[in-house]
Amino acid sequence: MIHHHDAVSVIRAKRDGLQLTDGQIDWIVDAYTRGAVTDEQMSALAMAILLRGMNRDEIARWTAAMIGSGERMDFSSLTRPTVDKHSTGGVGDKITLPLAPLVAACGAAVPQLSGRGLGYTGGTLDKLEAIPGWSATLTSEQLLAQLDSVGAVICAAGAGLAPADKKLYALRDVTGTVESIALIASSIMSKKIAEGTSALVLDVKCGSGAFMKSDEDARELAQTMVDLGKDSGVRTVALLTDMDSPLGLTAGNALEVRESVAVLAGGGPADVVELTIVLAREMLAAVGMTDIDPADALADGRAMDVWRKMIAAQGGDPAADLPAATETEVIAAESSGVLARLDAMSVGLATWRLGAGRQRQGEPVQAGAGVEWHAHVGDSVRKGQPLFTLHTDTPERIPAAVAALKDGWTIAQEGKRASLVIDRIG
Amino acid sequence: MIHHHDAVSVIRAKRDGLQLTDGQIDWIVDAYTRGAVTDEQMSALAMAILLRGMNRDEIARWTAAMIGSGERMDFSSLTRPTVDKHSTGGVGDKITLPLAPLVAACGAAVPQLSGRGLGYTGGTLDKLEAIPGWSATLTSEQLLAQLDSVGAVICAAGAGLAPADKKLYALRDVTGTVESIALIASSIMSKKIAEGTSALVLDVKCGSGAFMKSDEDARELAQTMVDLGKDSGVRTVALLTDMDSPLGLTAGNALEVRESVAVLAGGGPADVVELTIVLAREMLAAVGMTDIDPADALADGRAMDVWRKMIAAQGGDPAADLPAATETEVIAAESSGVLARLDAMSVGLATWRLGAGRQRQGEPVQAGAGVEWHAHVGDSVRKGQPLFTLHTDTPERIPAAVAALKDGWTIAQEGKRASLVIDRIG
Repeated sequence: MIHHHDAVSVIRAKRDGLQLTDGQIDWIVDAYTRGAVTDEQMSALAMAILLRGMNRDEIARWTAAMIGSGERMDFSSLTRPTVDKHSTGGVGDKITLPLAPLVAACGAAVPQLSGRGLGYTGGTLDKLEAIPGWSATLTSEQLLAQLDSVGAVICAAGAGLAPADKKLYALRDVTGTVESIALIASSIMSKKIAEGTSALVLDVKCGSGAFMKSDEDARELAQTMVDLGKDSGVRTVALLTDMDSPLGLTAGNALEVRESVAVLAGGGPADVVELTIVLAREMLAAVGMTDIDPADALADGRAMDVWRKMIAAQGGDPAADLPAATETEVIAAESSGVLARLDAMSVGLATWRLGAGRQRQGEPVQAGAGVEWHAHVGDSVRKGQPLFTLHTDTPERIPAAVAALKDGWTIAQEGKRASLVIDRIG
Repeated sequence: MIHHHDAVSVIRAKRDGLQLTDGQIDWIVDAYTRGAVTDEQMSALAMAILLRGMNRDEIARWTAAMIGSGERMDFSSLTRPTVDKHSTGGVGDKITLPLAPLVAACGAAVPQLSGRGLGYTGGTLDKLEAIPGWSATLTSEQLLAQLDSVGAVICAAGAGLAPADKKLYALRDVTGTVESIALIASSIMSKKIAEGTSALVLDVKCGSGAFMKSDEDARELAQTMVDLGKDSGVRTVALLTDMDSPLGLTAGNALEVRESVAVLAGGGPADVVELTIVLAREMLAAVGMTDIDPADALADGRAMDVWRKMIAAQGGDPAADLPAATETEVIAAESSGVLARLDAMSVGLATWRLGAGRQRQGEPVQAGAGVEWHAHVGDSVRKGQPLFTLHTDTPERIPAAVAALKDGWTIAQEGKRASLVIDRIG
C-alpha cells in the first residue's frame, strides 16, 4: 500500500498536536534531505515540534530517519570495545581532552567525533587546533587504524554521517527553533548512533553556562537521550552535572589544552580531575570493564602516553609550545572574603568576546584568547589579588569582555561550590 | 535611540509567548519585504504566531506594517461615498456579482478589488472571466474613472498594494500556517485599508464549506477584523453567515454568472437574493444612506443597468452567451422525502474536481465546469428526480466529482435550512 505524503499535511498534523506517523516522519526527513521539502516548510515544522513536542515513539523514529539519511560507521573489526562520551556543552568544559586518552589507556577504544564551537561554548576541535600541526580531518580508514593502534581519536565528523541533521541544525540555528528537547536529543543521538559506538556516556550540563538552564529541562533531555540510546541497542547512561560555575580555571582554546595536559600529568584543577575520573568510570562500566580504576592510569602516566600518541597520530606536536595571546589584562578582587559565586555564562561570554569563539560558522578563532580565573568558588580571596587574567590578540575587545564579566562573580563572607554531579540517569 | 533587531530574537519572543513590540513588528515586516529576513525565518514566526496568537495591539501594528509595505489608494476625489464588501469565501458565494452593481445603483461607489480562487472556494475574478472579453486588469486611473462613471468596479488588486501580504500569503499557503486568525485578519484588512475605502462590510462565513468551521472561530475572526477596521478609521461591520450549505443552486464560474444575472433580472434563488439585499443594506447604512431600499433598485432594473455598464467598461459583452461545458452528468435522488442536508464542502470539492477551480496558483480554470443542484435544503424531492447536474469539459474528472459528493447530502422525512445570517458584529 502506497501512502502519499505532502509537507503541508505533516506540518498541520504536528501543528494541531497529533502524533506523526512513522510514514510521515520517514517521508519528511528523506524529502527534506533531498530538497523536495523546502527550508521554509521544515522551519514551520520545527517550530510546531518545539511548541507541541514529540513523544518517545516519534523521537525514536525521527532519530532513525536522520541516521538513515546517511552512512553508518562500523567498528566491529576492532578487538577493543568502543565507548563514546558526549557533553551538551559548557564553559571551560575540556573534559574530552584528558578523558579520551585516559579511557583508551584503560583498554577501551574511544571514537570521539566532535564539533566546532558556536557562540559562548567552546568546541573540542577548536581547542585541539591550538596544538601546532594537529589536524581534525581523518578519513574513515585513518580513524579506524588510529582507534586500533592508539585507542583514542578526537576528530571531525565526516559529511556522510546524518546529513539530514547537519541541514536541519543549520536551519534551526537561524529560525529560533534550537531549543526543542526532541530535536536536540535526536540531533545528538543520530550522530552518536550512526557513529557505531557500542556504549555511550552523556554529560548533560545544567545551569547558567549550559544550554539547559533548569534541572527539569536537563533531566528531560537526559532521559530522552538515554531512552533513544537504549531503543537503538547502544548502552547509554547520562550524568547531570553542574554548569552554574565554569569547569577548571581556564576557558579558551590553548588555555584549556594546557590545563588538560596538567591533568594528564597528574595535576590540574580538582574539579576537572574529578569529572574526568567519574566519566571514565562510567565509560568503562558501560563496556563491562569494572575492574579497572582509571585513577591509576592517570597517576602512572599511561593516559599521558596515549595523549602524546593520539596528538602525534594526527600531525600534532605534543611537546610544542602552545600559542599565547599577545595581550593580557588582570582584574583584581575588589574586596577580601570568599569567592561565593562565579557565573559560567558571564565567563563564557567574556571568553567569546576576547576572540576564542565565533559568531558565525566558518569564522576563525584565536588560539591564545580566553579567560583564566585564579580562584574556584569556595576559595578565599584577598582584596587586590588577581581574580581574572584576560588573554587576547585584539586588545580592543577587552572592554566588551570586562563588561560581560561584570556582575559575574560575588565575594562574600562564605560560600561553597555545588556538587559537580547532580544525578545519574540510566 | 536606535534599536537593533534580528530575526531570531523576534521569533524567540513570539515562540516564548511574549508580546511583540511595535519596533519588532515594523522591523520584521519591512525586512521580510526587502528579503533581509528569509522565508524560513518568516515561516517559523508564522507558526509561532499561529500557536501563540497576537493580541489586538500586535495585530493592529502588524496590519499597519503590511499596509506600509506598499502604496495606498485614494478615492477622496470621488463625489460618491465609497464602500466595500469582503467575504471570507464559501461555496456558491457569487454575492459580489449582483451586490456591487446594486449598491452602485443606490448611489455609493463600490471598489471591489478581488482575487482568484485556490482550492475548493471559487474566486470572483475567475467567475467574471467566464464572460467573453471581460478583463480583470485595470490601472489605478481606469479604476478611478470607472468608479466615477459607473459606480462599481470588480478588478484585480494591483501588485503595489500590501506587497508584504502577497509574499507572506504565498509562504503561509505552503507551510501550514494559513489558519491563524491574527494572520487571516491582518491579511484581509491590510488590503482593504490600503485600498482606501471609507466603509467596509464583512461577510464572515461559518460552516463546513467555509474556512472557519466553528461559530467560535468565525466570531473571533469577525471581531478581530471589525476592531482593526475601526482602529484604522474605516467604518466596519461584519455579518456571520451560514456556510454549512452552499449558496444558491450553482457553483462554478459561468454557472454562477448566470445565476447572478438571474438575480439582477429580479429572479434567482431566494437565498442569494436575501443575502444580496441584506449586505446591500449594511453597505448603504455604513455610508449613512439609510433612506434607500436596495430591494427597489433590484426590482426596477437599475442594478441590472449598472451591471451591464460595469461589464462593458471592462471589455465584456453582457449580452454574449456564456460558455457551457461539453459534458454533463445527472445524479438522481435515491429516495423520496425532504433534502435535509447538503454539505457545502462536498459540493465545493466536486466543483473543484470538475475543473472549475485550481490546485496551484496560475493554473487555468474551466469556465463552464461546476455543479448545479436542483433542490435547496428543505425542499421536497421525489425518488429518481435529478438532484445534481455535473458540468465539465473533461469527463474523466466525473468519477472524482461523484466521489467528492458521496455522503454530501441526506434525504429524510423532514429538514429545513438554518438561518442565513447568524449574527451581526459591529
